[in-house]
Formats: sequence, C-alpha cells, structure tokens
Amino acid sequence: MKLFLTNALQLLHTTNPLVHHITNYVTVNDCANMTLAVGASPIMADDEAEVADITALASALLLNIGTLNERTVASMILAGKKANQLGIPVVLDPVGAGASSFRNQTLKQLLTEIDFAVIRGNRSEIRFLAGEESHTKGVDASHLDNQTELEAQQTAKLLAKKMNCVVAITGVTDVISDGERVFLVKNGTPEMGRITGTGCMLTSLIASFCGSTPEELFFATTTAILVMGIAGELASERSQNIGTSSFRTALIDAVSQMNATQLIERGHFNETTN
Amino acid sequence: MKLFLTNALQLLHTTNPLVHHITNYVTVNDCANMTLAVGASPIMADDEAEVADITALASALLLNIGTLNERTVASMILAGKKANQLGIPVVLDPVGAGASSFRNQTLKQLLTEIDFAVIRGNRSEIRFLAGEESHTKGVDASHLDNQTELEAQQTAKLLAKKMNCVVAITGVTDVISDGERVFLVKNGTPEMGRITGTGCMLTSLIASFCGSTPEELFFATTTAILVMGIAGELASERSQNIGTSSFRTALIDAVSQMNATQLIERGHFNETTN
Amino acid sequence: MKLFLTNALQLLHTTNPLVHHITNYVTVNDCANMTLAVGASPIMADDEAEVADITALASALLLNIGTLNERTVASMILAGKKANQLGIPVVLDPVGAGASSFRNQTLKQLLTEIDFAVIRGNRSEIRFLAGEESHTKGVDASHLDNQTELEAQQTAKLLAKKMNCVVAITGVTDVISDGERVFLVKNGTPEMGRITGTGCMLTSLIASFCGSTPEELFFATTTAILVMGIAGELASERSQNIGTSSFRTALIDAVSQMNATQLIERGHFNETTN
Repeated sequence: MKLFLTNALQLLHTTNPLVHHITNYVTVNDCANMTLAVGASPIMADDEAEVADITALASALLLNIGTLNERTVASMILAGKKANQLGIPVVLDPVGAGASSFRNQTLKQLLTEIDFAVIRGNRSEIRFLAGEESHTKGVDASHLDNQTELEAQQTAKLLAKKMNCVVAITGVTDVISDGERVFLVKNGTPEMGRITGTGCMLTSLIASFCGSTPEELFFATTTAILVMGIAGELASERSQNIGTSSFRTALIDAVSQMNATQLIERGHFNETTN
Repeated sequence: MKLFLTNALQLLHTTNPLVHHITNYVTVNDCANMTLAVGASPIMADDEAEVADITALASALLLNIGTLNERTVASMILAGKKANQLGIPVVLDPVGAGASSFRNQTLKQLLTEIDFAVIRGNRSEIRFLAGEESHTKGVDASHLDNQTELEAQQTAKLLAKKMNCVVAITGVTDVISDGERVFLVKNGTPEMGRITGTGCMLTSLIASFCGSTPEELFFATTTAILVMGIAGELASERSQNIGTSSFRTALIDAVSQMNATQLIERGHFNETTN
Repeated sequence: MKLFLTNALQLLHTTNPLVHHITNYVTVNDCANMTLAVGASPIMADDEAEVADITALASALLLNIGTLNERTVASMILAGKKANQLGIPVVLDPVGAGASSFRNQTLKQLLTEIDFAVIRGNRSEIRFLAGEESHTKGVDASHLDNQTELEAQQTAKLLAKKMNCVVAITGVTDVISDGERVFLVKNGTPEMGRITGTGCMLTSLIASFCGSTPEELFFATTTAILVMGIAGELASERSQNIGTSSFRTALIDAVSQMNATQLIERGHFNETTN
C-alpha cells in the first residue's frame, strides 16, 4: 500500500482518466471541480440517447442517486451495462439509501443488473444495503446507526463479499474492505459534515483513482479516502474560524495541491486482522 | 421577538430540522450549503415517485419555481399536499412570478392546492401574486414596481390575509406580515444583488427556522431575514473591494458563524403600527 | 476595436442585458454569477412551456449542450426560433461536439433550424462543426486536434463564412472570425483548464456583450474573450500557489472588478491579415 500511495497521485496525473458521472444536480459542480483538482477529467451526461457513447470514452463510471429520477435510472442501467461489457470500473454512491421506497427499489435494480467495482456510503446507507437495520435521516447518517469499529468492519466485509466488490463506509473512522482485507482510515475533520457534497466529492476521487489503476481497486479506494481526509485536515488548518464556505474552497484547493509526501506523512491507515 | 431572537439560532442547532427542497438547479448548491451553515440539514428530491416519502421525513418543505418544468410541478403538488396533511410548514419562493404564463399558471395551481406557511419574494413577484400591476424583468425586481414603504406594507398585509400565511417582500427594506402585524427590517447590503441565489438562500433560511419553530412562523421568518441581512453586512465588511465571488463565500461563512449577540446587536427591525 | 473596448464594460453596465440561458446543470451557477459579475442579468429557463416567453424578455439567448437531454433539445429549438424572429442574438456553446451521436445530431439540428450570432468552442468542438477530423476527449480539446495558428484561422474563417456568424476557437491562442476579419487573442493562463466551467462562463460573457451591443457581434465576442483572459491572469496572480478553488473565486472576482483601463492595458490582441 505504501508503494502504491507513493505513486498514485503522479500516476493519476499521467493517465488523466475521464470519469463519466451520472449524478445529482446539488453537488455536481463540486464533483467536477474535485475530479479536475486531483488530476482526472469529469464528464457529466445522463440522457439515454448518449450515455453508452460517453461511457465508452471513459476510464470509470460513477453512479450517484442523490437526485434520482425515472429518466436517469434508465440511463444508469444502460451506462452501467456498457461499462461492465467494456471492463470499465463502476462506482456507486447510494445517497439516501433507505429514505424512500423509490431509492430502495432503484438500488435493488442497480445492484442486480450492474457489477460494481466500489460502493461508498455512510453507515446508514451501507447498513441498508447490507440488509441490516438502518435509520437514515435524509442524506446524513443517523446516530441510531452507530456501530462499534468491529461491527462496521463486519458490515463492510460482508457486503463486499456478497457483492464481490470493494465497500467503503465513511465516517469518523473510514472502513474499507474487499471482502478479505480491511483497512481503517482515521483522517478527516468534523467540518466536512457542515458542507454539502463531501461524500459525493469523495466518490469522485474514488472513481478517479479507480479509472487510473483499475487493477488495484482496493488500494485506489483507500488512497482516495486518504486524500479526502488529509485535504479536510489541511483545509481546517487553513480556514480555521472563518466559516464553512471558506472551508469548502480550502478543501478543493488542498486536493489540487496534494503531493505524495503529504499522503505518506499524514495518512493514518492500518490494516486490521479482525 | 427579542426573546425569540436570543434563542432561535441555538434552538435551530439543537433541533437540526431536515428541509426538503424542490428547487431550481441554478442555486441549489448554495441553498444546500446555506441550510447546513445555519444548522439545519437539506435534502433535495424532486421525482414524483419519492417526494411524498421524503417530505414525510422532513420538518419543512420548500418549493422554489426558479427552473420549473412540467415534471417537477407534479412533484411540488404531491409534496405540498403531503406536507399539509402532516402539518409540516411549506415555504414558497415564487421566482420570476409574472415572467411567463407557465409560471403564472403554476403559481395559481400551487396557491389553490397547497396551504403555504410563508411566501417570500421580491416586490415584483409579490405584487404579481397580490394581483397588483407588476413588471417583472426575469428574476429580478423591476424599478417600475417600486413602492413606498407604506404601499409595500399594504401589499404584504393584504396577501398574507388573503392566503392566511406569512408574506415577506425582500428588498432594500424588508417587509414581513402575518396579515395583522408588520415587521420592517433594514439590514443588508447592495452587493447581495450582484450574486445569484441570495433570494433562494434566504428562503432556505426561512424554511430552516420554520422547521425548527413551526408554531412561530412570523418570528421565524423575520429571524431568517435578519440573519441574511446581517450576514450580508459582515460579508461586505470582510470582502470589501475584492469581488463578488469572495462576497458569496463570505456570506455563507458569516451565516455559519452567526451568534445571538450579533443578531441582537446588529438587527435593525421594528414593528410598524400602520 | 480600441474605442469599442474603452466603452464596452460601461455600456454593458448601463444596458444591463438579460441573458436567457438554456444550459447544463454542471456549471450553471458559475454562469449565472459570471453574468452578474460583468454587469448583465441571467435567467435560466428550459421548459418548452415557457422558453418562448422568457426569450422574448431577453437581450440574448445562450444555448449550451453540456448536459443535453431530449426535453431540452425541443426547448432550445423553440427558444432559438423565437430569438431569430425577434432579432435577438443567439450564442452556441457546442460542449463535447463529437463525443456522442446524440450530441452530433442535435448540433446538426440546431445549426439547421437556428441562425446563430456566435459559436464558441475549443478546437476539437469547432473542428467537428467545420467538418474536419476531430478527436474529442469528452468535453476537453484533444491534443490530437492541435493546429498551427494559421490552420486555426482558416477553420474559424471557413465555419464563420459557412454559418454566417462569428466563430471563436478558444485555447492558448484564441481565434475569432466573422468570416472576413480574424482577431487573435493571447491572454489567459493554464490554471483555467484546471477548473470546470471556464468555457461555459466565457460563453456567458460573450452572450452578455452581444446582448449589450448586438450590432457589433465581432467586437463584442472579442471583448468577452479579452475580459476572460485578463481575469484569468489577474486571478492567477492573486491566488498563486493556493489552489484551484481559490483560483475560481478569484476569476469571478476579477471580472466583477474589471475596468476599461485593465482591458486596454493588458489586452493582447491583434488583427491578422492571413
């Protein structure tokens, strides 16, 4: 992992992967800017008439159900199948899983018809997907879904094994599993919860790294989570006591300036043997 | 009102109301960040298949017709009726009222089928809703619709009585009425007119306070208007001569850091007896 | 041109043109803020039921196909025809031309049914429209489409003559032609490629100047390109080594504070006789 981390940013800049987003209209601009900040290129396209063409140009496909509608569900299925055919990694952000039966049915359909490379959500969303009791409150995790670290590891591992993909539960401690191995990441800062889109932007980073190194999805996902957490810490240091919008600016700034040394020196991650 | 003002921000942080937005895609990110900045939680969802489920989770519903389309009109009606059934306050931002017959017919339908708790608009929009002569220029108020303060009070009072809700006309002086009482607010700064979304963001603040204290809609609306006006002044002081985008950042920052003392000390409001 | 440049900003502030955008949801907020920053007023409306009404209020119409869908294509045609009837300039941003057959067919339809005043794109997009070989990579220009300055001039001139409009190819050197004359502009900075929306925002500036001086489309387009390039340089100076999001803020700030002296002193443009 350390070797991977040393080269990941450099490699991403060199490969400059195109990331096709079918995503919500709330945080889409932040996602585009975050994708560019890390060295990838975003493209957003959601009409059935063109999603297969666009996916075919891309190195990764990101599906985010934040402002789902019936038109885009059909596009997600189409794009996901195309990506699967072409061997392009597909990353899922199950925003608000559990919040409505429409979201739940859509997620069921997506998980049935598409093979995902990575699924990233908060604990309420991932617990819902794992078939555990979940109390989503809109798009934020519910405190009722608090788990011990050990429980979160089990949830991530179980879902990863079941779906044959990488699963990331992000929160105070981030838990990443490929069904066998589990990484814990402890970077980040509470300010990240006071702006919209930190989850969505993180998923854009995951898709960017997966597009750059599709043969190393577990490491790619963990690296993206480290980049985001460290950027949060740097942004917090820089925007201290100024306010949430300055924090948002500083967060994207920090990703755009991140280097391997920062990643190695500030990254708090460890593999667990549980 | 002073007692309310002293506790409103604190209370909002404690209750952390979920605000369901069906809104335009131009300023939606600013609205989400503003909602978070003041201590509430935003959720945006606009598909007919899920809006009733989402409204049922929320403490307030906000309908903003900025980029109206036929699909979302149906969703607004559905969500509004659900909110009415459940006693959740519904806040209307009639963006561009008068600018097209589609907007006008939609507004008529919304006002017929849904009971609103609060309607907030600029003088052109509110004059249009009140059945007065109106000369909207797109989404900005027209100088042809200038009124004396006394006339604005009459307009607000009349519409509030007719619709049995709180009406706020925002501009250089803000006028808020519940049909009986009228508050005038004189905070704010001209820079607010040089960025997009100040009206929309203010409506998000109103919905946040109404979600927190639904039994005090008149005070909640006035408090939101004070928060926005004072934030504008603070942002102007901080971003002086830098530019409009820095002003926007400073505006959200100021709301995220606002405290009761600032509200009490800087708030310029008075009840009028006209 | 120098005389035009001296008065253009002042004139734009005085006329305050309303610019009707039918555009993508990725960069729409930036476009609205950029339009306001330069002194114009944006309105975004894309439903078939109202676009003709909205266009009729406007001084310019901007069509941007960034996140095209079948619903908005019909609206673009309707609005474009209305603008043509009323003599309102229509500006096209052919985002991602060549990236999908849906985009290509839509562009063909738009160019057949609507008379454009200005078309602005990167070299891959404009080459595609000019019927030359093009290798678009999503929404960014491909290095495979590099041309010599002389070739770019020929492409712009040819398309401008064919479409009877102004054509702008933006890149390291910007090339603007009305089919007879050609201007070259050499302002700008590489940071502009590391944020989303610089192309879209530039097209908003073009539409704003065209709305202000519809009888001088060639000069208006060149002025907008100068404003954007100089703003990029100023933003780069101010946000040096901070990051891409600070650069974005500084870019809009710079436009909001731009004056005629900066335009005259920093503008690097010349008419070519090729």
